Amino acid sequence: MLALLKTNYNTILMEFRIEKDTMGEVKVPADKLWGAQTERSRNNFKIGPAASMPVEIIEGFAYLKKAAAYTNCEAGVLSVEKRDLIAKVCDEILEGKHSDQFPLVIWQTGSGTQSNMNVNEVIANRAHQLAGKVIGEGEKTLAPNDDVNKSQSSNDTFPTGMHIAAYKVIIETTIPGVEQLRNTLQKKSEEFKDVVKIGRTHLMDATPLTLGQEFSGYVSQLDHGIKALKNTLDHLAELALGGTAVGTGINTPKGYAKRVAEYIASFTELPFVSAKNKFEALAAHDALVETHGALKQLAVSLNKIANDIRMMASGPRSGIGEIIIPANEPGSSIMPGKVNPTQCEAMTMVCAQVMGNDVAVTVGGTQGHYELNVFKPVMAANVLQSARLIGDACASFEEHCAVGIEPNHTRIKELVSNSLMLVTALNTKIGYYKAAEIANTAHKNGTTLKEEAVNLGYVTPEEFDEWVKPEDMVGSLK
Amino acid sequence: MLALLKTNYNTILMEFRIEKDTMGEVKVPADKLWGAQTERSRNNFKIGPAASMPVEIIEGFAYLKKAAAYTNCEAGVLSVEKRDLIAKVCDEILEGKHSDQFPLVIWQTGSGTQSNMNVNEVIANRAHQLAGKVIGEGEKTLAPNDDVNKSQSSNDTFPTGMHIAAYKVIIETTIPGVEQLRNTLQKKSEEFKDVVKIGRTHLMDATPLTLGQEFSGYVSQLDHGIKALKNTLDHLAELALGGTAVGTGINTPKGYAKRVAEYIASFTELPFVSAKNKFEALAAHDALVETHGALKQLAVSLNKIANDIRMMASGPRSGIGEIIIPANEPGSSIMPGKVNPTQCEAMTMVCAQVMGNDVAVTVGGTQGHYELNVFKPVMAANVLQSARLIGDACASFEEHCAVGIEPNHTRIKELVSNSLMLVTALNTKIGYYKAAEIANTAHKNGTTLKEEAVNLGYVTPEEFDEWVKPEDMVGSLK
Amino acid sequence: MLALLKTNYNTILMEFRIEKDTMGEVKVPADKLWGAQTERSRNNFKIGPAASMPVEIIEGFAYLKKAAAYTNCEAGVLSVEKRDLIAKVCDEILEGKHSDQFPLVIWQTGSGTQSNMNVNEVIANRAHQLAGKVIGEGEKTLAPNDDVNKSQSSNDTFPTGMHIAAYKVIIETTIPGVEQLRNTLQKKSEEFKDVVKIGRTHLMDATPLTLGQEFSGYVSQLDHGIKALKNTLDHLAELALGGTAVGTGINTPKGYAKRVAEYIASFTELPFVSAKNKFEALAAHDALVETHGALKQLAVSLNKIANDIRMMASGPRSGIGEIIIPANEPGSSIMPGKVNPTQCEAMTMVCAQVMGNDVAVTVGGTQGHYELNVFKPVMAANVLQSARLIGDACASFEEHCAVGIEPNHTRIKELVSNSLMLVTALNTKIGYYKAAEIANTAHKNGTTLKEEAVNLGYVTPEEFDEWVKPEDMVGSLK
Amino acid sequence: MLALLKTNYNTILMEFRIEKDTMGEVKVPADKLWGAQTERSRNNFKIGPAASMPVEIIEGFAYLKKAAAYTNCEAGVLSVEKRDLIAKVCDEILEGKHSDQFPLVIWQTGSGTQSNMNVNEVIANRAHQLAGKVIGEGEKTLAPNDDVNKSQSSNDTFPTGMHIAAYKVIIETTIPGVEQLRNTLQKKSEEFKDVVKIGRTHLMDATPLTLGQEFSGYVSQLDHGIKALKNTLDHLAELALGGTAVGTGINTPKGYAKRVAEYIASFTELPFVSAKNKFEALAAHDALVETHGALKQLAVSLNKIANDIRMMASGPRSGIGEIIIPANEPGSSIMPGKVNPTQCEAMTMVCAQVMGNDVAVTVGGTQGHYELNVFKPVMAANVLQSARLIGDACASFEEHCAVGIEPNHTRIKELVSNSLMLVTALNTKIGYYKAAEIANTAHKNGTTLKEEAVNLGYVTPEEFDEWVKPEDMVGSLK
Repeated sequence: MLALLKTNYNTILMEFRIEKDTMGEVKVPADKLWGAQTERSRNNFKIGPAASMPVEIIEGFAYLKKAAAYTNCEAGVLSVEKRDLIAKVCDEILEGKHSDQFPLVIWQTGSGTQSNMNVNEVIANRAHQLAGKVIGEGEKTLAPNDDVNKSQSSNDTFPTGMHIAAYKVIIETTIPGVEQLRNTLQKKSEEFKDVVKIGRTHLMDATPLTLGQEFSGYVSQLDHGIKALKNTLDHLAELALGGTAVGTGINTPKGYAKRVAEYIASFTELPFVSAKNKFEALAAHDALVETHGALKQLAVSLNKIANDIRMMASGPRSGIGEIIIPANEPGSSIMPGKVNPTQCEAMTMVCAQVMGNDVAVTVGGTQGHYELNVFKPVMAANVLQSARLIGDACASFEEHCAVGIEPNHTRIKELVSNSLMLVTALNTKIGYYKAAEIANTAHKNGTTLKEEAVNLGYVTPEEFDEWVKPEDMVGSLK
Repeated sequence: MLALLKTNYNTILMEFRIEKDTMGEVKVPADKLWGAQTERSRNNFKIGPAASMPVEIIEGFAYLKKAAAYTNCEAGVLSVEKRDLIAKVCDEILEGKHSDQFPLVIWQTGSGTQSNMNVNEVIANRAHQLAGKVIGEGEKTLAPNDDVNKSQSSNDTFPTGMHIAAYKVIIETTIPGVEQLRNTLQKKSEEFKDVVKIGRTHLMDATPLTLGQEFSGYVSQLDHGIKALKNTLDHLAELALGGTAVGTGINTPKGYAKRVAEYIASFTELPFVSAKNKFEALAAHDALVETHGALKQLAVSLNKIANDIRMMASGPRSGIGEIIIPANEPGSSIMPGKVNPTQCEAMTMVCAQVMGNDVAVTVGGTQGHYELNVFKPVMAANVLQSARLIGDACASFEEHCAVGIEPNHTRIKELVSNSLMLVTALNTKIGYYKAAEIANTAHKNGTTLKEEAVNLGYVTPEEFDEWVKPEDMVGSLK
Repeated sequence: MLALLKTNYNTILMEFRIEKDTMGEVKVPADKLWGAQTERSRNNFKIGPAASMPVEIIEGFAYLKKAAAYTNCEAGVLSVEKRDLIAKVCDEILEGKHSDQFPLVIWQTGSGTQSNMNVNEVIANRAHQLAGKVIGEGEKTLAPNDDVNKSQSSNDTFPTGMHIAAYKVIIETTIPGVEQLRNTLQKKSEEFKDVVKIGRTHLMDATPLTLGQEFSGYVSQLDHGIKALKNTLDHLAELALGGTAVGTGINTPKGYAKRVAEYIASFTELPFVSAKNKFEALAAHDALVETHGALKQLAVSLNKIANDIRMMASGPRSGIGEIIIPANEPGSSIMPGKVNPTQCEAMTMVCAQVMGNDVAVTVGGTQGHYELNVFKPVMAANVLQSARLIGDACASFEEHCAVGIEPNHTRIKELVSNSLMLVTALNTKIGYYKAAEIANTAHKNGTTLKEEAVNLGYVTPEEFDEWVKPEDMVGSLK
Repeated sequence: MLALLKTNYNTILMEFRIEKDTMGEVKVPADKLWGAQTERSRNNFKIGPAASMPVEIIEGFAYLKKAAAYTNCEAGVLSVEKRDLIAKVCDEILEGKHSDQFPLVIWQTGSGTQSNMNVNEVIANRAHQLAGKVIGEGEKTLAPNDDVNKSQSSNDTFPTGMHIAAYKVIIETTIPGVEQLRNTLQKKSEEFKDVVKIGRTHLMDATPLTLGQEFSGYVSQLDHGIKALKNTLDHLAELALGGTAVGTGINTPKGYAKRVAEYIASFTELPFVSAKNKFEALAAHDALVETHGALKQLAVSLNKIANDIRMMASGPRSGIGEIIIPANEPGSSIMPGKVNPTQCEAMTMVCAQVMGNDVAVTVGGTQGHYELNVFKPVMAANVLQSARLIGDACASFEEHCAVGIEPNHTRIKELVSNSLMLVTALNTKIGYYKAAEIANTAHKNGTTLKEEAVNLGYVTPEEFDEWVKPEDMVGSLK
């Protein structure tokens, strides 16, 4: 059948076939595996770019549909043939073979029903092909609702799919990226352990510390952040599957919920379990709120780190200039020879996005009503974006910036030796008030501490040299 | 030259050519128009999906590069031939002919320098082709920096590009979408002007109003929102171009800033002007913060409207059920016959995203340092997404929901006639305290107001019928 | 009557009297003017510190209760005696005479009903005293609901009160504070118009500009911000009063809404008008969302300004040190002689708070249901806090920091003359690529641009001196 | 000395004494215990209401000053007499005896230096009194910096004070409040375990569940929330004290950091430890970000719960009306007899505030620079407010709402028996498509499922009665 199709952007002549659902007939592009409900959704939700539903969610569905097929088969409500067909298509999806078959957007029904049906329809039609038949001809090999969706509801599959997707991205991208950066910063912290530099508080000169100590603070931040993120994984490991329509598990065989989670754990090699309370698992997505809270905490830490590094690298001649970062690209289209802290900028932009995403996830999380939260796609999409961006940005920052950071020893020495805040070492010898007088006088006169300390008669030159040593001021905690 | 390319995802054998910049040589895929700096950025910023820099920004660049070429030519610093070549490629970009030539991501340098260079390089190389030559061979027809970027800097082009992009999306998508919905709600408000229904405050029964009055509140919200959005356009119309590197306009010919804005206004048919203060225009993006603030206000209004509509449509038998909304798709993969307020859900998810985006834009906006804000790409991307989503979601909501809303007259009448809050009409006759006694007694006994009003001896049946008429309680403001 | 009272914090022996409402009797502290409903609320909402309802809201109520009394009297539904008693107590409230009579918290009913009743009860009881009687004895001089609240509902009084409160704070504190700072920055911009300094983009050295130009950017930001804030005042000037229970104006005399707004405008000397659509005015508070959006924009601008100033003032010896700010207090309890940019810190903390408040206001704004938004107190409290903090912080910053900013001429000259980015002036003479080579070589060798420019044979010493003049690089826009 | 004092609001005649610091002399109200630096801060930061610095922070300081005194004494750097004087004043502060001696605001220096000095000065002056002397006369009994602040810096005391304060509020108010509510909801869940009601997804009728199951979801949310909050306490238990100026611990005796944390743990009876990394502990406050993230998660959960309850209680005649909540106060100043879900409203307003506070804390958290984060007071104040509000609101909600919730059995039965979604039970018998046909037909005709199921010939009346039993549809997960 040839017809004029009005797509998001234009009208074109296309080949169609007819698909049906409980509402009637729908024309579907002949070369696509999806069915009536997917097509309805494509037409009803032309909001933003097409196919914005994250691919990780589709993959989450592939895992869970396969697991449901196995569990249903084991429970005697699905034939081995049907199970194997479903499993085969799910494997194909996970191999990326049908990436053009999931055209739906985030901005659809808030339960993700249509993406669930998209997966059901693609599996059913593809299975029909695998069974050697032509889509739309002959008796259906699999029914999208009664077979592929057996013992399931969008209300428990979608949250299951989003937990699988989020958990995987965190394990595969976020944590490895953050750890890669953390380990390099740790190595740098050790390398720089004897580089004594001026400390700065309120952006103002303070007592000295080592560059290694400064970097150790970054490592500690990331250690706490990784720990906080891992703390959220228990909640994220809880799967809604088995709750079906409202959390009661209607239309599921006995033992289904526990068993299907075991299959998912086995297929993904991740420690998923059946949620203890299915009513929460459908109606609230506090697990996503919790996980994103930890991602946001990491963004806060990373923002601090990237900010410090760009300030310390600022210059080359009119800034702080205490460290040198790799020059990766020409920095300016108009100012020749300029090199900029571009990795720091990419990182802090990612942090701003994650802070924004946190509000989107939070707002979505507050709005569950009765038995269902219908902000699932927007919550999942934001968690997945944040998790991926943080992981990628950390890896990029490590590879193109952190690993190449070097101290500018000359500059560092120059700054520390001029500092007025070395006077703090005298507090315990002559008291805070006399020490302040020395610093204030030296600042006013543009002189050195030693000169004024001696002039004021508070210490001898020998005492000053013995008491005021930057390298002795950094070690009290050792 | 054949070589192995490590892309974001895999390693493939590709044909390359060599491109150069001030840092040295870079291998670039032979079939691509971009040059060395684009390729460096592609390799240095593997953060999130490829090519995430919004296409609207690229189009904004096409307008401004063409305008700069015309202005430079007029000022005598660029030949007519070069101007025409630049303009021709810009036109091609605006026609969508080079959509695969802009592979960079949002998460690059915060000034967008590399996207500016991407455009410069594509224009230069494509111009070389248009001049009948082969890329990489013969003398360069155009130099990316000295010709295409003449009288420009990333620091003034990128903010100009993002203002053009945002202004256009707001004019072409956001405002038309919101107005489409506003007009349909206005029509519904008139249609429903005599449908007297129960009012609800605190979700509890209150005095009656008409369904038309209820909808008039939505119209008023959107009217205020559109006005607020339009209020921000003056600031957004100010263009940074001509400020070049730091706002002083170094390396620009006399009169350039004003003239180039006139060209952009002419090419886009939008009222752009040169920013009065170029230092602000590079170092702060309060205009984007201001515009997004208005988008967020619209999200707040739309959230209220969509929420009300789904509550009023809830049921069909156990909810409020006062209005009927179109049934666009099967609502459940497990519960047969279920129809859901899916457009309301898409809309409120969009609202949640816009609220989150507002924080990303705000955080980015706070972080300008000295002469440059380096959160440009993330700010622009969020503004563009919000502007598009709101426009699209309003159009979708109008077309697939609002236009088809019908009152459920039976249900509405049933609810209004049972209401205890009709007692409020008696306040001015018998005082608040006696009226309260009537309502409380009827509530306790499950009886009608009239019964108890008469029983308590406060009014006669005739008085009650005369004083307590729902249709008389809705009109005081007429 | 003596009894044991359990207050927020402890149990004490107090004198009581009995007050009644439609639910029955309540014991009220004998020395207080409030009645039964206030007392119920005090006991039912022990959330956070007592009396957190902002005093500005109470004052807003005083204006509107007086205006309602005048309008009711004019309409013939309230006696002149009652009008004058109400007006007299309202005036006393505005003089601050009853500041200990409003003990309720923000976290009460979301319509603010109990604060409305608190005002009604205080007015009624105080009027009883003014009439020469003892509270709780004799016939009531005024009935809180039937007289003081006549032609009103909490649903229209509270939003009216919050609009009056917000408008007044913005006019009396916010705008004057921001303008005070803006004017001083403008003066500084003029003072510093010839101070040529190094520009910085990406925190890296860039081409020069004047310190005056830098400050002009701040002025422009604040000008735009003040304009944006003023743009929101039209919406804020719309008063809900006259909508009563659900927006229909039930139980109001003819012409009431328009007239009562005129009285309020007259009493406050501010341009208040009756809201065109009362349904919006009760059910949505987009006006507060809009106003707070502009406050947030100001916070974004102020954050940028305060941040720049503290970075430029950093040092005294190991930072940027280009400007000197007043030393207002000893900066450190341990580091003698330390002076910190404390006003910048107070300002940026205020900005962080305002950004947070914006989300609270936004979230509250989304959650109107049907005829009423029940997040009124939290929305109003956040708007009032932000408006006050911004005004106060600007005044403080101006008085204790901005007014005293002085350039450190020595440091500024030193930095600008060393800068490699002066090479940009050569772009138009020898092209971007050769200019970049000069800068890169000088950076590598630690030499001057002039040395390398001549060594590389691209310019003569005379050409260099003629072409590369910082003071000529700042004026293109003049 | 008598002089005119310009306070925040007016000019009054007051008695003064002269105090000194390193910057010179300051006039201080004669009856106050604070000194020069407190007075400077009072005059320099007139931002918002006076004395906004949370009292919990002051108490945190009292614990840590006492602990420092003990540790210093033990280390031989402070006499027993001085230790005991310091400890005695600290105890007085903890008893609330000096609550009018801490007049400073949140919006001061971002390190809280002036509040640290406020405490130091009050302790020193009060100790002088305890030693039998008159303030300002005779040799100082204690020096604020050299004695009271010994081995300390604002930079490590303020973060220590805020951790102590936050930890205590969470343990004493937040967790008990949440648990009180959680336990009552758990009890209700058990009470309601046999109350079969209609489920709702997308606000639309769905398959049934029990009211007890619905409440079990709330309990599960709070359980997860409490666990998430407790997960953050390890980080919060880490104390900065001993890091002094920049984290190196300069001017502290050996072993000080560990020992002072032990004293604090002992005095507070809470498991505080010395932070492993003091550089993080001064420069970043991710621990507060982490803790507030968990508070925000609780706000998300509580918002869902309160929202559900007010929707289920809506009516009394035109809403859902499935549950009855306590009537605590007259609900309307104009509509007699109205009762509103006021505790739900207070709760959800608190949730909106906490969501906003989260952004303030997050933004503050990103902005540490080098060795110090200078958003300490704003971060701490927001964490403390959120922790207190959540605890108080939960207790209030429990006491005045949750404990009194009762099912409206008549209404619940009526709604469940009418529901079309009972058809879902037929899916496994006759398939999804035939079941959908039954539901759609019954909906269209306004008939019952049974009628249409039999009419369509899909089931017999007997089969229908056997297969479609609401009470059998809720138990699959048992």
